[in-house]
Amino acid sequence: MALLYISLPDRAAVWQPIFDAAGVPMIIGEEAVLDPAEVTYIACWQPPVDLSIYPNLKAVICVAAGVDHMPPMPEGVVLTRTIASSIAPMVRDWVVMATLMLHRQMPAYIEQAKTGTWKSQGIQSSQSRRVGIMGMGRIGALTAQTLSSLGFDVAGWSRSGTHVDSIDVYGAEDLPAFLQRTDLLVCLLPLTKETRGILGQDAFNQLPAGAMLVHAGRGGQLDMKALKSALDSGQIHSVMMDVTNPEPLPADHWAWTDPRVIITPHVGSVTDYAEGAEHALNVIRALRSGEDIPGLVDQSRGY
Amino acid sequence: MALLYISLPDRAAVWQPIFDAAGVPMIIGEEAVLDPAEVTYIACWQPPVDLSIYPNLKAVICVAAGVDHMPPMPEGVVLTRTIASSIAPMVRDWVVMATLMLHRQMPAYIEQAKTGTWKSQGIQSSQSRRVGIMGMGRIGALTAQTLSSLGFDVAGWSRSGTHVDSIDVYGAEDLPAFLQRTDLLVCLLPLTKETRGILGQDAFNQLPAGAMLVHAGRGGQLDMKALKSALDSGQIHSVMMDVTNPEPLPADHWAWTDPRVIITPHVGSVTDYAEGAEHALNVIRALRSGEDIPGLVDQSRGY
Ligand SMILES: NC(=O)c1ccc[n+]([C@@H]2O[C@H](COP(=O)([O-])OP(=O)(O)OC[C@H]3O[C@@H](n4cnc5c(N)ncnc54)[C@H](OP(=O)(O)O)[C@@H]3O)[C@@H](O)[C@H]2O)c1
Ligand SMILES: NC(=O)c1ccc[n+]([C@@H]2O[C@H](COP(=O)([O-])OP(=O)(O)OC[C@H]3O[C@@H](n4cnc5c(N)ncnc54)[C@H](OP(=O)(O)O)[C@@H]3O)[C@@H](O)[C@H]2O)c1
Repeated sequence: MALLYISLPDRAAVWQPIFDAAGVPMIIGEEAVLDPAEVTYIACWQPPVDLSIYPNLKAVICVAAGVDHMPPMPEGVVLTRTIASSIAPMVRDWVVMATLMLHRQMPAYIEQAKTGTWKSQGIQSSQSRRVGIMGMGRIGALTAQTLSSLGFDVAGWSRSGTHVDSIDVYGAEDLPAFLQRTDLLVCLLPLTKETRGILGQDAFNQLPAGAMLVHAGRGGQLDMKALKSALDSGQIHSVMMDVTNPEPLPADHWAWTDPRVIITPHVGSVTDYAEGAEHALNVIRALRSGEDIPGLVDQSRGY
Repeated sequence: MALLYISLPDRAAVWQPIFDAAGVPMIIGEEAVLDPAEVTYIACWQPPVDLSIYPNLKAVICVAAGVDHMPPMPEGVVLTRTIASSIAPMVRDWVVMATLMLHRQMPAYIEQAKTGTWKSQGIQSSQSRRVGIMGMGRIGALTAQTLSSLGFDVAGWSRSGTHVDSIDVYGAEDLPAFLQRTDLLVCLLPLTKETRGILGQDAFNQLPAGAMLVHAGRGGQLDMKALKSALDSGQIHSVMMDVTNPEPLPADHWAWTDPRVIITPHVGSVTDYAEGAEHALNVIRALRSGEDIPGLVDQSRGY
């Protein structure tokens, strides 16, 4: 019974004493595996190409919040993504910042600074800006509450339409109605078969003309060509994105210098190493005791 | 008994029906005054050069939130600044945006975009960022509560040190201790004799090295030369300002294109015209009934 760790050395240095204290053996790197039968858990971002060589493998523990890059798991192997209490508030903060930046016309002010132009773009009240959040999970629900407390008129959209306190949540089939009432669209969806390319021409055309977009889900959800057309036609007014397609965005990509676009390099959150180790231990403990597994991914849904 | 209105025509168009309904005569522009003895109230941004020609004047009602440009009032004339419920949340939103933008390294990301550089600047938790707010009035206190709810470690500073719920407020004489504990300084002070130039070399040197500055008070509080030196020495890491010195900032000013500085053209808030008219009526009603005058300025303190 051992955890095979395949990730950064500096993260390993934080994990090692935590696993030592918990009495769970930790093997660092595949080359250090003496007997594949020993490996019962793997913690990694990118998993080994062939998982079938570990006959007693019970779980692959992804060290990040998203698992869209993971291959299908062998029969009997569970997949988890990292649940850490620090992630949701960090991403929420980025989305609040991005929402305010578009709402308060920062792309125009950043452009005006280049020529030293002192000119108000007007101020709209937050009450009159209808924010729509795609994905009302841990991060989306928290973000909705915060933006609502700042006065924005917030609604959400999720597969199930599960109720979130004091926020209108639209279900999967109500996407058109949700988009029609949304002046500023926020994406906080996981990347799955269903959500790949969801931010494309179809969705953009259903928004009111001149809508704004904040993207903090995954790059693969965004059709960059459709975005360019929507910006050029005025259908989309401005965009702020933390994830891009492809990622990293090539240095010569049009979006970098487009005055209607602001990009950050996937810095919505970082997982604190110690919190990540605790999460991995919680997964191992839950597997042993038969309790609910934290961050368990439903592999048929893809999240 | 009449209100002399000296301000924008489009604001007048909103005020007129509100004053008509309230039965208070409104004279638009000094040239329309037939008998100066009629004028009991003046609503304006810039007051008439000679207020003494109005023998029955009781109040000058400033149509904005700040009165630092106002001359001394004649004996027996009160000065008010506009209190509107929309102002504090609007300025708060701008300060929350600016605080998050510095906290999450937006100046560096905006600079990196120019060369298409995809590089994380790291992410710090909001808990580990000590925000210090100078001025804990209507706007400062609200801003402190919101930043605190986002997890920042917030303290305030005010003349009186008046208690604000769950926020540490330092009094006037504790400025050094307040500055020493502040990683990100927010200015929301009124401009007075005491606060002119307060954001200067002395204050900057008392902050921890590499501190950040968010300025939404008044331009006259900021010594731009001292700021340039503090940026160049690294004492100040980055700045976001909505007010400048001078204002508007000349097109060729160094600050416009400094990658450590982000400027917006005094767009922290606008006063809704109808709310401003209601405020003016409330001042007039309070003067008649002898109740507390909303937005009354203590002319000896200057705010
Ligand atoms: N930018 C960054 O640095 C960063 C950092 C962390 C996470 N993220 C992104 O944020 C995403 C959300 O994270 P989370 O922890 O909030 O996830 P979560 O708790 O699993 O929530 C996912 C939400 O998306 C909804 N959803 C999934 N598929 C859908 C579909 N096809 N149609 C409609 N709704 C769908 C879910 O609906 P149900 O409620 O019905 O299940 C749920 O509300 C991550 O997957 C990742 O892409 C980005
Ligand atoms: N950027 C924008 O668009 C915008 C818009 C509106 C307002 N503002 C600025 O924000 C300022 C504050 O507005 P407000 O409505 O919050 O004002 P306020 O309610 O009058 O509060 C002023 C605060 O500043 C403190 N203060 C005044 N002089 C001081 C001194 N010498 N030393 C220490 N503290 C001092 C006061 O202390 P006490 O509590 O002890 O009285 C009070 O806490 C305005 O004056 C204006 O400059 C900017």
